[in-house]
Amino acid sequence: MVAEIIAVGTELLLGQTVDTNSAYLGKTLAALGIDLFRRATVGDNEARLVHAILEAADRADLILTSGGLGPTQDDLTKAAVARAFDEELVLDPAAVEHLRTFFERRGVPMPENNLRQAMVFRTGRSLPNPMGTAPGALLEKNGRLVICLPGPPRELIPMVDNTLVPLLIERLGGERQVLRSRVLRTIGIGESAMEERVQDLLASANPTIGTLAHLGESHLRLTAKAPTEAEALALIEPLEREIRTRLGAHVYGIDDTTLEQAVVELLRARGRTVAVAESCTGGLLGGRITNVAGSSDVFLGGVISYSNRAKEELLGVPGDLLARHGAVSAPVAEAMARGARERFHADLGVGITGVAGPGGGTPEKPVGRVHIGLATARGVESRQYDLPGTRADVRGRSVVLALDQIRRALLDA
Amino acid sequence: MVAEIIAVGTELLLGQTVDTNSAYLGKTLAALGIDLFRRATVGDNEARLVHAILEAADRADLILTSGGLGPTQDDLTKAAVARAFDEELVLDPAAVEHLRTFFERRGVPMPENNLRQAMVFRTGRSLPNPMGTAPGALLEKNGRLVICLPGPPRELIPMVDNTLVPLLIERLGGERQVLRSRVLRTIGIGESAMEERVQDLLASANPTIGTLAHLGESHLRLTAKAPTEAEALALIEPLEREIRTRLGAHVYGIDDTTLEQAVVELLRARGRTVAVAESCTGGLLGGRITNVAGSSDVFLGGVISYSNRAKEELLGVPGDLLARHGAVSAPVAEAMARGARERFHADLGVGITGVAGPGGGTPEKPVGRVHIGLATARGVESRQYDLPGTRADVRGRSVVLALDQIRRALLDA
Repeated sequence: MVAEIIAVGTELLLGQTVDTNSAYLGKTLAALGIDLFRRATVGDNEARLVHAILEAADRADLILTSGGLGPTQDDLTKAAVARAFDEELVLDPAAVEHLRTFFERRGVPMPENNLRQAMVFRTGRSLPNPMGTAPGALLEKNGRLVICLPGPPRELIPMVDNTLVPLLIERLGGERQVLRSRVLRTIGIGESAMEERVQDLLASANPTIGTLAHLGESHLRLTAKAPTEAEALALIEPLEREIRTRLGAHVYGIDDTTLEQAVVELLRARGRTVAVAESCTGGLLGGRITNVAGSSDVFLGGVISYSNRAKEELLGVPGDLLARHGAVSAPVAEAMARGARERFHADLGVGITGVAGPGGGTPEKPVGRVHIGLATARGVESRQYDLPGTRADVRGRSVVLALDQIRRALLDA
Repeated sequence: MVAEIIAVGTELLLGQTVDTNSAYLGKTLAALGIDLFRRATVGDNEARLVHAILEAADRADLILTSGGLGPTQDDLTKAAVARAFDEELVLDPAAVEHLRTFFERRGVPMPENNLRQAMVFRTGRSLPNPMGTAPGALLEKNGRLVICLPGPPRELIPMVDNTLVPLLIERLGGERQVLRSRVLRTIGIGESAMEERVQDLLASANPTIGTLAHLGESHLRLTAKAPTEAEALALIEPLEREIRTRLGAHVYGIDDTTLEQAVVELLRARGRTVAVAESCTGGLLGGRITNVAGSSDVFLGGVISYSNRAKEELLGVPGDLLARHGAVSAPVAEAMARGARERFHADLGVGITGVAGPGGGTPEKPVGRVHIGLATARGVESRQYDLPGTRADVRGRSVVLALDQIRRALLDA
């Protein structure tokens, strides 16, 4: 099976949006062993879109489109596919129903132009879109399979995972080779240091090993190819065990596990609770921990102490400590951690204070200087970091480091 | 002048790299007023690459390629262009010299395969690459201009800015047209409802009007084409004014302004401060406000009151209110808002409480139910929402709605 991808949208050609969908679709096709030799990007212009579809149909069995399924006049993808394949568009009653329910739940009347989204190929069918109003559409004609996906990644990704992949797996049937990956996620070790520890294993051909760095984390991906999933996993297992031995506590989780999930699970396993006091991160640490469903079992809350007065009044940081050391200092990070622990009656308290930038740096306390305190029943300690990058980088990395400090304290306990 | 872009690299098709170069090139062409109707992505395969180049040459005057200029065997772009245009590749002495100097400065011997990079079209020329070893290449033949750019963005971007843009401006000479965009960012109105209000204006050809929805926001993009930037802006101005009149307070900003920037600027302009009390959003609202550099002027802090005890002790929410109405209720949202305002001595206090899901919903209080309270000197009020989507969606939308409540309160004040 040979595929082509057509990304639709003038905003893509103008460079106002970076096309991440095509990369996601490319990864998905690769994992299924489907060849992809060509991608195209076209604007919201029906004639040019028809032309691109006809070209793709000349070369490929499977055509995936993303974008152009919305309610407005410049959403033309289904009309173009219909024209290219000499097909009709008809109203799909189930999609109309989904739309009406969607608007009713919001308590707003449905603008009539939304019905465009409920159009479906006469000999095809809709693909459910639980995340939005525009369903996907499937057409199989002249030996070609065309699948139209929505443009917003938050709608496209679930539709790919839940609908497209099962559908393609069924089509592939016997010719299918399974590609199975296991990602080992590490924190606290750089990508090249991690690679050095596993250097001699990198030549492995099946599984292959790849490394990936992402915002303070380093990931290792093992990918095995075999006739069945069980056989692929059996190829991965001994290599994974060896790598885990070498990387030790740096490995915090596998596959899609996030660092905050690992921390919440560890807190739950140890029966501990945590509270936070955030200055430069302004709530991002709390926000990240509470990404995890069920985090209320272990996360009691926090204080965003952006002002000094809030540090004193809500966390009990002594005024003379602030005056003597300044808000960005180890003693204040420690007092904030202690304050969070006490005020929220938590087992662990975390305090973060730093200079996120771009302004506010001094020679003694440059932009990127961050102190993270951790208070437990055994006492309080803090670490000092000098973090590179933009304001967003400094804040993001501070959150990751704080989560890792919690995690390592729990592992040691 | 009509352009096409061809991005070269198997890693792009496999989705291992997201193609940001094409977006950068698209922005650049738009700014010069050069039409771009099509982009293609092809892997490191000479035959398919030649085919894509011939197709593009059929439709466009200007062909930009990115990638495939490196020293290894799978760097094939120049060879493919040469084949498509029946051209020869020859060694460029200046490029050889640049390569030797590059390696000497690093004190390492130059691997011989690097000489591939010094090949240039016999009737064309090299384009300097101060950031790397692979120079760009230019070929003008059969009425087509082909420019080959390197793949790494840190090499491509300076070559675009310093070499490509001046070269194209010179070519365009008198016929140069500037494309200038203005994005109007709205909140509190759906994409289709917004479109209905401006329906009769959509047929406008210059400026063109496009709509775009993004996580609870709807954007309108006006794009004008004119000989100069001033003339393009003059075309946009009356249409922008008309649309602003029709959309009123839904428009919160233009171009790259984020909602949190608009809120921080408005707070500063009105000389007001704000504090937050967050339950289901767990710190995300504070985190988002403090994305803005300098937000400490107007943002005093917040309490993440994930537990009921924290709501009582840190925000002064009465225990009997919690017992009578439950934590997710209008009275509690209002008491949280009041608590935040008082504890932080702020002009405005915001309180958010809700059921983010996926668990925790009941028939009376389903997943997605959110109350947002706002306390000011004039009193306190709250709104109830039923938000669709995942836990992340409910939390993200709650933050957007809270920011918009602050914004509208300041506009009314």
